[in-house]
Amino acid sequence: MNKLKAFSIVVFFFTSTLLLAQDSEIKTSSAQFIRDIYTEALTKGHAYEDLRFLCKEIGARITGSTEAQMAIEWGQKKMNAYGLETRLHEIQVPHWERGTKEVFYLKTSGGDHIKLRGLALGGSVGTKGTLRGRLIEFESLDSLKAASIEMVKGKIVFVNQAMDAKQIQTFKAYGGCYPLRGNSASVAAEKGAIGSVIRSLGLASDPHPHTGSMYYADGVDKIPAAAICTADANKIHAVFKNNPKQDIELVMEMDCRSFPDATSYNVLGEIKGSKYSDEIITVGGHLDSWDTGEGAHDDGAGIIHCLEAFRILKEMNYEPQHTLRLVFFMNEENGNKGGKTYAKWVKENEEKHFAAIESDRGGFAPRGFTCDGSEEQIEWLRTLAPVFKAYDLHVFEKGYGGVDIGPLKESYPGIPLFGFVPDSQRYFDMHHSPNDVFENVNKRELELGAAAIASFIYILDQKNP
Amino acid sequence: MNKLKAFSIVVFFFTSTLLLAQDSEIKTSSAQFIRDIYTEALTKGHAYEDLRFLCKEIGARITGSTEAQMAIEWGQKKMNAYGLETRLHEIQVPHWERGTKEVFYLKTSGGDHIKLRGLALGGSVGTKGTLRGRLIEFESLDSLKAASIEMVKGKIVFVNQAMDAKQIQTFKAYGGCYPLRGNSASVAAEKGAIGSVIRSLGLASDPHPHTGSMYYADGVDKIPAAAICTADANKIHAVFKNNPKQDIELVMEMDCRSFPDATSYNVLGEIKGSKYSDEIITVGGHLDSWDTGEGAHDDGAGIIHCLEAFRILKEMNYEPQHTLRLVFFMNEENGNKGGKTYAKWVKENEEKHFAAIESDRGGFAPRGFTCDGSEEQIEWLRTLAPVFKAYDLHVFEKGYGGVDIGPLKESYPGIPLFGFVPDSQRYFDMHHSPNDVFENVNKRELELGAAAIASFIYILDQKNP
Repeated sequence: MNKLKAFSIVVFFFTSTLLLAQDSEIKTSSAQFIRDIYTEALTKGHAYEDLRFLCKEIGARITGSTEAQMAIEWGQKKMNAYGLETRLHEIQVPHWERGTKEVFYLKTSGGDHIKLRGLALGGSVGTKGTLRGRLIEFESLDSLKAASIEMVKGKIVFVNQAMDAKQIQTFKAYGGCYPLRGNSASVAAEKGAIGSVIRSLGLASDPHPHTGSMYYADGVDKIPAAAICTADANKIHAVFKNNPKQDIELVMEMDCRSFPDATSYNVLGEIKGSKYSDEIITVGGHLDSWDTGEGAHDDGAGIIHCLEAFRILKEMNYEPQHTLRLVFFMNEENGNKGGKTYAKWVKENEEKHFAAIESDRGGFAPRGFTCDGSEEQIEWLRTLAPVFKAYDLHVFEKGYGGVDIGPLKESYPGIPLFGFVPDSQRYFDMHHSPNDVFENVNKRELELGAAAIASFIYILDQKNP
Repeated sequence: MNKLKAFSIVVFFFTSTLLLAQDSEIKTSSAQFIRDIYTEALTKGHAYEDLRFLCKEIGARITGSTEAQMAIEWGQKKMNAYGLETRLHEIQVPHWERGTKEVFYLKTSGGDHIKLRGLALGGSVGTKGTLRGRLIEFESLDSLKAASIEMVKGKIVFVNQAMDAKQIQTFKAYGGCYPLRGNSASVAAEKGAIGSVIRSLGLASDPHPHTGSMYYADGVDKIPAAAICTADANKIHAVFKNNPKQDIELVMEMDCRSFPDATSYNVLGEIKGSKYSDEIITVGGHLDSWDTGEGAHDDGAGIIHCLEAFRILKEMNYEPQHTLRLVFFMNEENGNKGGKTYAKWVKENEEKHFAAIESDRGGFAPRGFTCDGSEEQIEWLRTLAPVFKAYDLHVFEKGYGGVDIGPLKESYPGIPLFGFVPDSQRYFDMHHSPNDVFENVNKRELELGAAAIASFIYILDQKNP
């Protein structure tokens, strides 16, 4: 309740109709401070070079890999260099490796071979040599669920469910297909399938397969699971369509496997609060990525957004009222051990938490922020629209916070979680694919994201409890 | 005045507080129609393939070139195929060619040669063989203007004025540098310079030089004018900075030249109005482009936005109240003869004009529309914000219409000109450069632009005079 009051007071700073003379002064200086943040980001920013380093000098950094460890060390060094008090926070993480073999062929009843571009899904078992099986196509996970054991038994299942292109927000289209990636193998195995491949979760018809995590339900056989690029998923569909009755074989080999859990770390960096040092605002993204591409948008951009936001606030000699804590979370992609362990740890340490902010939707042109919180907190968020209008932000509404900060909700019921919202149109052209590389991040779009987050932290910190 | 009334009536359809039962019905069906437009564009759209054809099968299409003529023929054929009544509208256009030679070297006083990447500016004369001259750097057009004749005489001038990166809207930064490209050569020639090179009008530091039009003032010597890519402009600056006193030479050769005016065409396609067939809504972009790259964003995207908008309205069997006229303007880039001739021609034909819409800011994710019109017309535009909120459009304000439709203002004082506003962050990475190619246009972003424009045409047409 105390929190809510605190939030509602901030409203007075930013709604013009309620301004008193003193508030007006605060507002003017706030507006200038935000303008200065943007100028720093756009004219003297480190964001682009820092992201280049993370993508090109470190690269893809799946949980448990040497690259992930290098990224942890880089992250702490960067935070130190930018003047934060840092520490590592030990966690136990899953460890899965893709291995060296990843081949897929379609063999038609006429004997033609069609090479397919695919990726094992994260968590999948390997094929133990070559796996061959008759392929059966389903148009959706639901139609696979409805299929009989007789239809599926002994076959390799292909779930060709496309993301819904007519959705305006691509994350909505992704949400509609998300269960497909996680659950298809288990549903197929329950009916006796020997392998499972899905259409990649991407909107464009292109040659980039998209990986991502999958899980085996208890008690079912662990069968190999992979994703085929959308262009080749269309090819398979065309082969079936041209001759529905033919006996089509899928030939696949993957030597991916899981190892025992490993030790890893969240990276924490702080600027102590001058007034309410025991109240924390957590700001972060995830340092791990999938093992393909460079994790440039997912979530290199989010890491850099937050790092650059802290650098800018430090550079501008900003002395926050609350303690600002930057967290590079580990293992968002396949387990969220970083987020879960962090939420438990802060609670055990009896820390007070004021709010949390996450950036994990790519490095595109900013659109705004969403809030997973109470009606009053969302109402407060809405009052920020005029402040950010000149910077082209317009989304200030109820919505998701982020995977990493999500578990804080259990530790602190009532805490507002804020998610940074960039434009979503290009995200699923890259997400979890070899196409998620530095070259596909635009410098200015990245910089504007960092400036938006720095400004948001500043406004949030300026509330008067 | 009648126009203004007409506009204000539309407001009632879209502002929820004023809705009557009947209006509410109209609103619901309008909302569904707009949703159907978006679905058509995103799931069965022709935009991406049509743009690919224009960029890859035709290519760059500078006014007066064979490619421009091919684009005219393609445009009419496409309009016919999509069911419009078409005609060509003859115009006289300038004809300038780049030629085959375009080389630039810096020679330091130490004798080092540094190759520079540059492009002649459109309209420039050639160098008549190799041109060599001592180079003098100015930080801005203003500082060149302030320089004495003694400083400049006999030299090649280099104006290294950078676009202002701290501007949020990149078009503002462009506007600040625009005079530099058009006028540097004339200002330099007035002071006796023998050549003029400028820093390319682009925000990123990259290897792509940006061309664009330049003009010779009456009575000054016509000296060769070129733009050097920003990365190499930085190199030249560094050479001067390292040793300010050294004698630096620029060596350049260009064989560009102008030819007599040529005959060309605007391409017009119409859907006749069912109720007010004598009142016209003109919708368009420009078919010509610069002769480097493929004119993908400038203005292939605008052409395709408008073509696709008309295709969708036809596909949905929409019977407009007003006559909708699609115009592919020729020669926006270096003379605007298409726009000027069109405005004169419609006036001479005593046509009534209701409004005009242009798309000429690239094929990026839509942000909204601006209006060059009266306060009342802008107020009407603002009422559209709720209608487009679900489609992520949020800019509905006073602003520019477009170069091609601009001259209609003289023919019809009081006519509202609407400009489509996509996100501007990446535009000047491509604009007028070899980097403006099809690959740099995102399919969904392009499709969303076409849907926004089709929806806007529909709403505008639905007003009840």
